[in-house]
Amino acid sequence: MTMTGLDKWYGYIKSHDRAELWELLHPDAVFESPVVHTPQRGRDITFKYLVSALKVLNGDSFRYLGEWRSDDGAVLEFATEIDGITINGVDIITFDRDGRITHFKVMVRPLKAINLLHRLMGEQLAAAAG
Amino acid sequence: MTMTGLDKWYGYIKSHDRAELWELLHPDAVFESPVVHTPQRGRDITFKYLVSALKVLNGDSFRYLGEWRSDDGAVLEFATEIDGITINGVDIITFDRDGRITHFKVMVRPLKAINLLHRLMGEQLAAAAG
Repeated sequence: MTMTGLDKWYGYIKSHDRAELWELLHPDAVFESPVVHTPQRGRDITFKYLVSALKVLNGDSFRYLGEWRSDDGAVLEFATEIDGITINGVDIITFDRDGRITHFKVMVRPLKAINLLHRLMGEQLAAAAG
Repeated sequence: MTMTGLDKWYGYIKSHDRAELWELLHPDAVFESPVVHTPQRGRDITFKYLVSALKVLNGDSFRYLGEWRSDDGAVLEFATEIDGITINGVDIITFDRDGRITHFKVMVRPLKAINLLHRLMGEQLAAAAG
């Protein structure tokens, strides 16, 4: 089942089809950002963060570098370049038995990349809210 | 073989025996920090960073939260509290066929934790050099 959910995630990364993402998220999905400690709870806010993150990160240079698995999820390592700064990070994704995403956590390195991402995500979320 | 190396890593985390860590590192081991982009190359500097990181992070509240695997390595998620700040991170460890660590990358979240770690690692590395 993890496979199914993970395949759908990769599908979304290619298609950028928001309806696919929405279907993939569990109603009680939780998002944890690289910047802020407090988890963002619920499908609506998880969706909003993931859509904004894709807009910010998923340019031409975005690529997945590695994949590690557990019984109920996967860690995907990615890298991308923005404004000459390399952003290296991981998506830590947990799926339920039906392959829906219940938990999505992101970490990035180095410090310079987190500061850049902090600024760009703030701008993106503000634009989405406007 | 990954199992062997990973078991030895967990053993080191319990024992804090530096000789065990040294034996576990490949001569060409590379360390990548959460703070700095440039990889630290070689057994000596990788050893120094890992020893300092253990001193800084591995207090009473340190615990591993999750484990994901690939053919040649593992991602280990950890959490610890320092000065009232929760540090949540991953060790991304790659092993060679003999179970020695060839690559060790760390990412942490949130931003507050990276800034704290940046300061504490700087102090620890300076103390080790003194």
